[in-house]
Amino acid sequence: MKYDVAVKNVYLPNGDNKTVANIGINGNKIVYIGKEEISGTEEINGKDMLAVPGWVNTHTHLAMTLFRSYADDMELMPWLQEKIWPIEAKMQREHFKWGSYLGVVEMIKNGTTCFNDMYFVMEETAKAVDEGGLRAVLSRCVMGDDPKDDYRMKESLDFYKEWNDKANGRIKVAYGPHAPYTCTDRYLKKVVEYAKQDNVLLHIHLAETAKEVEDCAARSGKSPIALMESLGLFELPTVAAHCVYVDKNDRQILAKNNVAVAHNPQSNLKLASGIAPVTDLLDDNVLVTVGTDGCSSNNNLDMLEEVRLACYLAKGTSHNPTAIPAQQALEIGTYNGAKALQFDKLGKLEEGYIADIVLYNMSESYWYPRHNFVSNLIYAASSNDVDTVIVDGKVLMKKREILTLDEEKIKFETNKIALELTK
Amino acid sequence: MKYDVAVKNVYLPNGDNKTVANIGINGNKIVYIGKEEISGTEEINGKDMLAVPGWVNTHTHLAMTLFRSYADDMELMPWLQEKIWPIEAKMQREHFKWGSYLGVVEMIKNGTTCFNDMYFVMEETAKAVDEGGLRAVLSRCVMGDDPKDDYRMKESLDFYKEWNDKANGRIKVAYGPHAPYTCTDRYLKKVVEYAKQDNVLLHIHLAETAKEVEDCAARSGKSPIALMESLGLFELPTVAAHCVYVDKNDRQILAKNNVAVAHNPQSNLKLASGIAPVTDLLDDNVLVTVGTDGCSSNNNLDMLEEVRLACYLAKGTSHNPTAIPAQQALEIGTYNGAKALQFDKLGKLEEGYIADIVLYNMSESYWYPRHNFVSNLIYAASSNDVDTVIVDGKVLMKKREILTLDEEKIKFETNKIALELTK
Repeated sequence: MKYDVAVKNVYLPNGDNKTVANIGINGNKIVYIGKEEISGTEEINGKDMLAVPGWVNTHTHLAMTLFRSYADDMELMPWLQEKIWPIEAKMQREHFKWGSYLGVVEMIKNGTTCFNDMYFVMEETAKAVDEGGLRAVLSRCVMGDDPKDDYRMKESLDFYKEWNDKANGRIKVAYGPHAPYTCTDRYLKKVVEYAKQDNVLLHIHLAETAKEVEDCAARSGKSPIALMESLGLFELPTVAAHCVYVDKNDRQILAKNNVAVAHNPQSNLKLASGIAPVTDLLDDNVLVTVGTDGCSSNNNLDMLEEVRLACYLAKGTSHNPTAIPAQQALEIGTYNGAKALQFDKLGKLEEGYIADIVLYNMSESYWYPRHNFVSNLIYAASSNDVDTVIVDGKVLMKKREILTLDEEKIKFETNKIALELTK
Repeated sequence: MKYDVAVKNVYLPNGDNKTVANIGINGNKIVYIGKEEISGTEEINGKDMLAVPGWVNTHTHLAMTLFRSYADDMELMPWLQEKIWPIEAKMQREHFKWGSYLGVVEMIKNGTTCFNDMYFVMEETAKAVDEGGLRAVLSRCVMGDDPKDDYRMKESLDFYKEWNDKANGRIKVAYGPHAPYTCTDRYLKKVVEYAKQDNVLLHIHLAETAKEVEDCAARSGKSPIALMESLGLFELPTVAAHCVYVDKNDRQILAKNNVAVAHNPQSNLKLASGIAPVTDLLDDNVLVTVGTDGCSSNNNLDMLEEVRLACYLAKGTSHNPTAIPAQQALEIGTYNGAKALQFDKLGKLEEGYIADIVLYNMSESYWYPRHNFVSNLIYAASSNDVDTVIVDGKVLMKKREILTLDEEKIKFETNKIALELTK
């Protein structure tokens, strides 16, 4: 059979560790996986490579790539007040543009095919996603007290009208109320109203620090999770980022309402927030996904690194070395994310699924011996082993060369504009 | 000036983030660092690269690379009884040889220039280190009850005679009593006696699990650390691996006796042992270093990944985002390790220091923007960015090509022998 794209001679992450397969893609769909010889209008030689679904990063602030290595190892308030906020106040459209392009380049190169973003001037992020070829759910971050005539909310609604369901459905718009401590209850209720009207998902930071939970209880008598439920947020599909401090009752609320948790282990450690109780969340049937958070608190967008840490922390903090085995880790970083972001038929290598596929070159020494490919991926490999990236049936990167964007120009321009901004 | 080796146009990890420098090497020493034009019999073009001291991995079991991806996500006892021990019992000299070669290849490629190893059939590891060009402290793991006529001890003493201070001083032999729970007190005392006689350092696992500490208290009335002090171990320079469960008294004993702690954060999480109190150790003036442990509990020998995790865990568990800033992390992973292993003038890029140097290629997107090189290294970079490795003044890898060993053959043979062994 001849397909639009034929990915040939790859290994699959199915525990077989032996058999080589071929993948046929027509349009944006996987239509064949098996051992038959196939050909394609475009052919990818996947010899000695492992094919996996692309990573889905469920919580980022893309243009914050500009701040990578600008202000590390600081206390929260001096970091915000002396470093981040003064610079954010100076940012122009150009900054969001180049910061977004750099983020898209980084994600393509590390095998992230879909992400969930919340920041400002999101049109620039949308353009970079469209041009780069990635899949994304984008929300203009909103916050405030009185929703009436709020410019942020207006920008958010305009952004929805302009960009929702664009780029062959690769771009979806969500609404992004920042957090319970930056939005009043009436503001949040209004966001929920708009979200219901436009049928979008919500993206919010919840229960990130112990102080947030204490303050919320003092103000409302409820935990952030319980308060959000009472305000009606969870009537919409919601991605709740962080959820570091969630008790049994919170976890039951999350599970009952199908709220997806975006676990950000590196950011939570780096900002000294704590460690989310991931095995408890899983035991209580909460949909756990993984995100990197923005580049000023991570400092990269490396999903493999993030998923590896999620695994290790789950084992270490639950005192159970069998927690989150490698195969489940792969699913958490791919399929669970796709499910959280409400993409249908995404996140698996199966016939009928959308063709968002990543090929890992297994030539480096840490892929040997090859007792188990998925274990080698999750526990030993590097994101620099990503050789080929396909999104929506289109090849975005081949032999580590990005085909949709000018990587060298983006690195140069972003570096220049970021160093000028922080001078 | 003309040097044996001239490393040209590199950036240094000194917080300057601007100035390009040249490094002149004669014999095995750095004899010049500065802005003057230099030339060399051998020249390395370090344009757009960051030069750092090589990583020092203070706790590994090298030939366990054979077990990478063989048995993950298991409880400790089934893992040992059903998987590791039956296989170890079948291992021949050839297995130790190829497992060691694979480990040396992996370390050269990730910028590790020196390591501290404890395993069996150490002559094979010594040969691989000698040929590959790395620097190492090697110990034949010993354990038992009665030291009299013990074959392990005999092998250890023979290994010392044959290999100590060989390979231009790159190889030192240490004595490696496995742990307080596998060696009786009289056995340990005898090891101390031999160590004093031969003036070597000791390498031991200490306080790795809560159970070990409980059992030790029940048996001896002391913590493992206090018991080792009472048996005289700490009269020798000692590297104590793990130290996950150490109280204030233990930490004071470690500090007073200049015992170096090899912190193995990934292994401790993956085996669900726990998280070592690294900020407490540092506050109590204990020499903290970083190790990867063996490849069946990590599953790679990636020191950058390990140091990054050490940083993040220190911040997260101490609730202090300023804990172990990037510059200190680099020192912990390099200079502290060299100090722990008793190598003089090693672990810094300074005139008069031994030339163990690693160059990171900064071309990948996550090295941008370049506000701070060391922060980008510690928090964002990948070990696959290592371009060039120099040990003892000799270039072992250039443009990711290993010059001393046949990488392809080693990967092929190790894979074959490992898959046969576990069939």
